[in-house]
Amino acid sequence: MSTKYTIGTLGSHSALQILKGAKDEEFKTLVVTLPNRVNFYERFSFIDSVDTISTFTDFPSIEKKLIKENVILIPHGSFVAYLGMERNKKMKTFYFGNKQVLDWEEDREKQHQWLTKAHIDTPPQYKNIKDAIFPVIVKSFGAAGGSGYFLAKNQRDFGEKIKLFKSKRYIIQKYITGVTLYIHYFYSPIDKKLEIMSMDRRYETNADGLGRIPAWIQHEVEIQPSYVVVGNSSLILRESMLPQAFEMGEKIIDASKSLIDKRGIFGPFCLETIITPDMKFYAVEISARIVAGTNLFTHGSAYSWLNYNEPMSTGRRIAREIKYAIKQNRLNEILD
Amino acid sequence: MSTKYTIGTLGSHSALQILKGAKDEEFKTLVVTLPNRVNFYERFSFIDSVDTISTFTDFPSIEKKLIKENVILIPHGSFVAYLGMERNKKMKTFYFGNKQVLDWEEDREKQHQWLTKAHIDTPPQYKNIKDAIFPVIVKSFGAAGGSGYFLAKNQRDFGEKIKLFKSKRYIIQKYITGVTLYIHYFYSPIDKKLEIMSMDRRYETNADGLGRIPAWIQHEVEIQPSYVVVGNSSLILRESMLPQAFEMGEKIIDASKSLIDKRGIFGPFCLETIITPDMKFYAVEISARIVAGTNLFTHGSAYSWLNYNEPMSTGRRIAREIKYAIKQNRLNEILD
Amino acid sequence: MSTKYTIGTLGSHSALQILKGAKDEEFKTLVVTLPNRVNFYERFSFIDSVDTISTFTDFPSIEKKLIKENVILIPHGSFVAYLGMERNKKMKTFYFGNKQVLDWEEDREKQHQWLTKAHIDTPPQYKNIKDAIFPVIVKSFGAAGGSGYFLAKNQRDFGEKIKLFKSKRYIIQKYITGVTLYIHYFYSPIDKKLEIMSMDRRYETNADGLGRIPAWIQHEVEIQPSYVVVGNSSLILRESMLPQAFEMGEKIIDASKSLIDKRGIFGPFCLETIITPDMKFYAVEISARIVAGTNLFTHGSAYSWLNYNEPMSTGRRIAREIKYAIKQNRLNEILD
Repeated sequence: MSTKYTIGTLGSHSALQILKGAKDEEFKTLVVTLPNRVNFYERFSFIDSVDTISTFTDFPSIEKKLIKENVILIPHGSFVAYLGMERNKKMKTFYFGNKQVLDWEEDREKQHQWLTKAHIDTPPQYKNIKDAIFPVIVKSFGAAGGSGYFLAKNQRDFGEKIKLFKSKRYIIQKYITGVTLYIHYFYSPIDKKLEIMSMDRRYETNADGLGRIPAWIQHEVEIQPSYVVVGNSSLILRESMLPQAFEMGEKIIDASKSLIDKRGIFGPFCLETIITPDMKFYAVEISARIVAGTNLFTHGSAYSWLNYNEPMSTGRRIAREIKYAIKQNRLNEILD
Repeated sequence: MSTKYTIGTLGSHSALQILKGAKDEEFKTLVVTLPNRVNFYERFSFIDSVDTISTFTDFPSIEKKLIKENVILIPHGSFVAYLGMERNKKMKTFYFGNKQVLDWEEDREKQHQWLTKAHIDTPPQYKNIKDAIFPVIVKSFGAAGGSGYFLAKNQRDFGEKIKLFKSKRYIIQKYITGVTLYIHYFYSPIDKKLEIMSMDRRYETNADGLGRIPAWIQHEVEIQPSYVVVGNSSLILRESMLPQAFEMGEKIIDASKSLIDKRGIFGPFCLETIITPDMKFYAVEISARIVAGTNLFTHGSAYSWLNYNEPMSTGRRIAREIKYAIKQNRLNEILD
Repeated sequence: MSTKYTIGTLGSHSALQILKGAKDEEFKTLVVTLPNRVNFYERFSFIDSVDTISTFTDFPSIEKKLIKENVILIPHGSFVAYLGMERNKKMKTFYFGNKQVLDWEEDREKQHQWLTKAHIDTPPQYKNIKDAIFPVIVKSFGAAGGSGYFLAKNQRDFGEKIKLFKSKRYIIQKYITGVTLYIHYFYSPIDKKLEIMSMDRRYETNADGLGRIPAWIQHEVEIQPSYVVVGNSSLILRESMLPQAFEMGEKIIDASKSLIDKRGIFGPFCLETIITPDMKFYAVEISARIVAGTNLFTHGSAYSWLNYNEPMSTGRRIAREIKYAIKQNRLNEILD
């Protein structure tokens, strides 16, 4: 039954994991990518077809073909970044997920509203720099992959840096001292069940290299931290904090139903948190689709192996949800 | 044969791993937990029964039921923390491990004696702050999960901080500059064999977030490090140092036999080390039971896959030891 | 057919992984090690035979036996370090790999030439300290396992440290601020195909512990960083950077064919990179044989599970290459 549909995605971000998972669930697979990446995606035997577009924003140009081949598109981070929301929304290709959610992913103010509605703590935000408790971190809107951030230690430092800042839309947040943890959820609207698939922390350059440089060198050369994500590493959470991790996920879902629409968010999403020494979670972001950190777990995670006696990546979990929906004749519930 | 017994534990710390492992070895499984965590543990299909107590210290109140159902209790970190040793020792429920060892887990002076007896290096300890080589780390007794520590850079700093310190029982240790590594052992009294199951490092807030903050910010805002464990990440050790890792484990076992009683320590335990640039191990602690870092390895570790052609967590290894003992009619040797 | 050959290696570095992989591919296995490690290697049931030599440099003394038993030697880091190149090259035992490549592994100038030929960026190097942009990192030749490095913040600092430096052959490199990533490749000359097996970062003492020490302590006690590798942890790379990772691997192979000999490098190798905030790779080293970071992946990695539906470590991949070559009667192409 799966064979009628092809699972497809843009060639970037988490395409390998998504398509490997789709193949494991016996779907045909397709990637749409740039000419200079064709070579790369052709290395992997689980990808049945590699289609080319000249730029990612040109994606809608191959819609006809996708529709004809019953492609179900799986969105990921690059999808949102490259296609923009409007063009994305206008596409008629089968799309896994709720497109309404995308508006809430990209807009930092809407994110804040969502988290507040869900009663999840967030770092204090300042409209006016005069109210700030320092240090602060300044984040541009729509910053992708962790670029477009800066740290400031006081008002003057902020004043100098904001002049040079490229983005005119940004938020000012208190810099929370703690450790980061990204929780990968999957919510099944078919089973009405929330799972924690895995967890990671991002590997950011140069922030994750700073600590290796002793203070006496940093004293000589003032280094501006940057948060460009170039990789990920695996983590687990203290078991006594896991119930709260599940609760936060459920609150995100509930809040989405009242804020966005009746369906709300479903499928994979991620809560990006900082944990302080009093064991409190501060959420800095919701990713309303699969995150790249799940790429660590092509063969499953410490958490997924609790629930499955087979390797279950988030990519595969998506494919399995589609398979279940097909079998139950409920595909319309999970597509947009 | 396994079916006569139920493997049970307190709902916290490493309960998921323990019970998943027990189920994989075909035991019935039971968790005893707080009302607000029932929901959480019911999410997992490998847990056959979720029992409730109003507080963890209330655990002995359900003893009768546990005894009737042939429950074998698996102790973990929260077990010791919440039940205290005396109440714990008085329980008549089957208990995996040697209860005498618990006295040696909780008392920092006994720990030191144990490590010394085993000829394993430990950080220098100071009775008198005047003798200290700075920086020092001050650790309260019975500090659980990494809280209750502070760093001091000189006598005055120590003097100010000790005034505000909650604990009256503490040790003063030289702060060893190196990297941390936690080695997870399993000693089988049935096979008389020591295995290294896995290794980890703790993920501590805020200590593991400090390095991401540049010195010029830290210069502005003096941050007190804290060592509250909120997660774990996976590590392996350089192969040329592995023989020493095994030797340390064996010395711990040997020393326990002469210090504690004839049986000594068996089952899972952990040595918490710091490795200095001269490749020397300094042991800071022995955990005389399963540690939460093993939760990373529900599907096995780089080390366990060398020994098993199936996923082998420490939790599952415990269940298998019990199974072996049952088959050989030697259960009494591993229970208390 | 495999049974005629025995796969053997020196007992150190990545011997466990290599021999476990060999056993999984149905070879007989042998380790040659020091008397004080016999005990250690005998713990593992996948090692059929543990042979002893009094020092690693004494390895050639058991050549006759190795030749008689059709042993195929798998070289690793300790192999090169302990046997030196000349003695190594003179051995007549079957050797997996191209011995000519070893000259290019050990010599930092040749490494630089290799990377330049491959058009891979490297950190700026200075012949004269007066030209340096600080901080710089000074690396001795043939430094093994990350020892023999120092950091300098200015000319005076360099001048003082170089006086005490043990090595007379060294290079001076600009210290690149970024994050480290080690990419584990395998190039099959049988299939003419390059794979990425896995990735890691090294766990270095004390460099990876420095960040946990707050600046106000480091201000009090000036800590010299060291880079002694005592372990490894797992990483993945952002998918949009993976095509470049493959390209770098292919360039390394191509350059080796024109610089070294017609066969060039094959089998496992590793590119040790630093990634800067502009997402640029700087290569600091090529390891022209299996690296210890692959020891993380005895059960496969996020990358190997994309290509194999069974656990595939680099060690096992080597054994499989040998098996393929035997079946196709092309063993001579991959041995030296």
